Amino acid sequence: MEDMQALFSPRSVALVGIPRSFKIGTLFLMGLQDQGFSGPIYPVNPNADEIEGLRSYPSLSDLPDPVDMVIVMVPKDHVMPVLEECGKKNVKSVILYTSGFGESGDSEGLADQERVKEIARKGGFRILGPNCMGVHSSSAGLAFFPQMPRESGSLALISQSGSLCNLLMKAFEPRKLFFRHAVSYGNACDVDLPELLEWMGGQPDIRVLCAYTEGLRDGRSLARALESIAGRKPLIMWKVGRTQAGQRAAASHTGSLSGDEALWKSLFQQYGVLDVSDLEEMTDLAMAMHHLPWEGQGRIVLVSGPGGPVVSAADAAERWGLTMATLEERTRERLAATLPATGTSYRNPVDVGLSATFELNLYLDTLQTLTEDRNVDAIVILGGGISEETNQVYQEGMARIAKTTDKAVIAVAYPGFVQRLEDWLEPLCGAGIPVYPTPERALRAYARMRQFIEFRDNRAGATTL
Amino acid sequence: MEDMQALFSPRSVALVGIPRSFKIGTLFLMGLQDQGFSGPIYPVNPNADEIEGLRSYPSLSDLPDPVDMVIVMVPKDHVMPVLEECGKKNVKSVILYTSGFGESGDSEGLADQERVKEIARKGGFRILGPNCMGVHSSSAGLAFFPQMPRESGSLALISQSGSLCNLLMKAFEPRKLFFRHAVSYGNACDVDLPELLEWMGGQPDIRVLCAYTEGLRDGRSLARALESIAGRKPLIMWKVGRTQAGQRAAASHTGSLSGDEALWKSLFQQYGVLDVSDLEEMTDLAMAMHHLPWEGQGRIVLVSGPGGPVVSAADAAERWGLTMATLEERTRERLAATLPATGTSYRNPVDVGLSATFELNLYLDTLQTLTEDRNVDAIVILGGGISEETNQVYQEGMARIAKTTDKAVIAVAYPGFVQRLEDWLEPLCGAGIPVYPTPERALRAYARMRQFIEFRDNRAGATTL
Repeated sequence: MEDMQALFSPRSVALVGIPRSFKIGTLFLMGLQDQGFSGPIYPVNPNADEIEGLRSYPSLSDLPDPVDMVIVMVPKDHVMPVLEECGKKNVKSVILYTSGFGESGDSEGLADQERVKEIARKGGFRILGPNCMGVHSSSAGLAFFPQMPRESGSLALISQSGSLCNLLMKAFEPRKLFFRHAVSYGNACDVDLPELLEWMGGQPDIRVLCAYTEGLRDGRSLARALESIAGRKPLIMWKVGRTQAGQRAAASHTGSLSGDEALWKSLFQQYGVLDVSDLEEMTDLAMAMHHLPWEGQGRIVLVSGPGGPVVSAADAAERWGLTMATLEERTRERLAATLPATGTSYRNPVDVGLSATFELNLYLDTLQTLTEDRNVDAIVILGGGISEETNQVYQEGMARIAKTTDKAVIAVAYPGFVQRLEDWLEPLCGAGIPVYPTPERALRAYARMRQFIEFRDNRAGATTL
Repeated sequence: MEDMQALFSPRSVALVGIPRSFKIGTLFLMGLQDQGFSGPIYPVNPNADEIEGLRSYPSLSDLPDPVDMVIVMVPKDHVMPVLEECGKKNVKSVILYTSGFGESGDSEGLADQERVKEIARKGGFRILGPNCMGVHSSSAGLAFFPQMPRESGSLALISQSGSLCNLLMKAFEPRKLFFRHAVSYGNACDVDLPELLEWMGGQPDIRVLCAYTEGLRDGRSLARALESIAGRKPLIMWKVGRTQAGQRAAASHTGSLSGDEALWKSLFQQYGVLDVSDLEEMTDLAMAMHHLPWEGQGRIVLVSGPGGPVVSAADAAERWGLTMATLEERTRERLAATLPATGTSYRNPVDVGLSATFELNLYLDTLQTLTEDRNVDAIVILGGGISEETNQVYQEGMARIAKTTDKAVIAVAYPGFVQRLEDWLEPLCGAGIPVYPTPERALRAYARMRQFIEFRDNRAGATTL
């Protein structure tokens, strides 16, 4: 646990092999500066006196003070002596960015990776990587790139791929999904998925866990980690390398052995892991888990101006095992008093009619009415105005209503109806309303969220018995 | 056939019940004016002399000349006398916008719909609707809304839902997918899906058919229509009302009987219909069918800067039954000479490395090399620069290369990597490069396209035997 602390909140950082002038490696330093890392930062490069305004040192042993974390980005041939030095300097954690180890596919790369692990073990420090980007944690001032999210949140991200660690953070940001810690762990010669999962799961300020993985060495420690989380915190897991083609790609990406698909599936089922298979599905589900209330019975109502999309949505609701709410008589009466008489429907799905596009209050009054129906837990609403100005009125109205209810309010920004989904994310997600491009995706995410809740409740029930 | 001609290229149009001042109904007239309908347009409203700059007439019988098409939007109580007048006036086709018939769910609505059908039969005209938006055809100057696409293309859209007809056209437009004809047919008391499919399928200038349907009365005529298209033109079909919840929603939307799910499935299989289940899947597949070459053997290569996303993509490729291309030795040598030595891969998936984000030629040179590989039919490329300017360079480079090759070039604008997918659509789709947010969706669309081609070839083979 202390080891992990050293990875996620070091008091000082050295960057060994940082380029003299701007190259990819410079981004690691810029990331720390951008996040306002509060401790000392030591660039290490024998050919520079100063880098990005900081005094540079020829080697680790030349540093005036002890250092907690070392980020190593020297060419592969220079990695071993630097790691030996880390041991002598008593550093606590190393992030090894350099690649060309296990993922190279040759015996030399594999042997070198074993040596890295051995040097770390002897040197008494933990090592993340090789072939990884490292740690992002705004609260600790850590980042591996500049211009990354600066806000700290209640999600955690554990990604074997550095690029996906970065891309998921960027895709999550406009959806108001922020990470307490995000980590890219690469070839995992030492610190691996199970340990990261268990540690993240134990952090009180983390509520939802997301993971991307290509494989791992030790199935038993994974089962132990999943057991420690199961039913306590949702884990959204994107496991790749599930086909022969994917396994080959994973082997050359992080040198991972992807493992037996059936074994993974049974682990997921046993521990209620939310299995996803692409970035959209992960993003969609994280939005639901983070923004929506976990209470209620999962009874949904669909609301739309355009009639067609919600017929398909009703299909999706049933396919996903969701219950279409039966509206209270009182609700139907109120809707009948609000909505035009023709081209509308006061039953679920509620059709507010074509004219609602021009009279946005028809949407908002309907939403308000539905939040007061005791048979409804979640409202999926597909609508909008005809201009940016009216869409703003619509979004503000929804945000206002969502604040006054404990029901789930979910927005659909439908293609053709809404020009740019991106413009809808911040205003609505900022009010706790997740936004999806289609009702089908909204319902998939909501249904998966309910799966976690049911798993949790069943498990709690089993424990009580 | 002549009947359909009257629906899709009338020489004159009357709008009966058009509002005096701006309301929803006015949009029908604005739509015709917006598309520059070249024949006479006759507003009919007893309480106006002029509407939107055109002379208005008290009734159909007051029109000075014969009229081909009548769009009827009077309140339901007035529909029957207007239809009787249509018969007397010898009109050829009627679009009945008014709702409150079969979809109302009561016996009166159903009986009225039967009367509508009977009046049309006796009056010798064809009728589209009730409860529909009608026809969009830029080449004929027809549209039911203003600000709809003005370009005519080689796709056809047959949608039971008016809103989806509209929304699909809008969603398709930035993807450079234009319709020769689009039609919303509503409750289908007379003109129904089979006849529309058969007629559209027979139009020489239509290459790809898209349909959204909630149900139909006559399975045999559908089978006949599908038989006439099968293996000749791809039909992408979004059939809803496939669950009990969906069937209830369909009944109250267009009064449709959704029919037996197993029967639909077997029809789809027998006739090679491309079965989709939401707007994204339909849009994705239409993009592939329209923009990509139908030749080749479907062997794909994945190219990316970020490594993680293509491991998952390799999984998706195998799941969808696609073949990952084995690159020629010559290609691997050329890639080795182009790309950096570390953090890259010269095999499929090709990893161009992180630095390609700053050196876009690494992407473009790789793409060029892969277009010259005889083992490759399709290239899925996930990349981009760090700013709008560099992205433009990237897009222009891709467009240039795509023009010189007969291979499929498919772009992925990955979330987090690309801020706004929408900005990528026009420049790339305009060059025949479909754009998808994830490689998984790109591969699904490409695989479904290959399914049609295989169905076509098998059918041709069977016919030859």
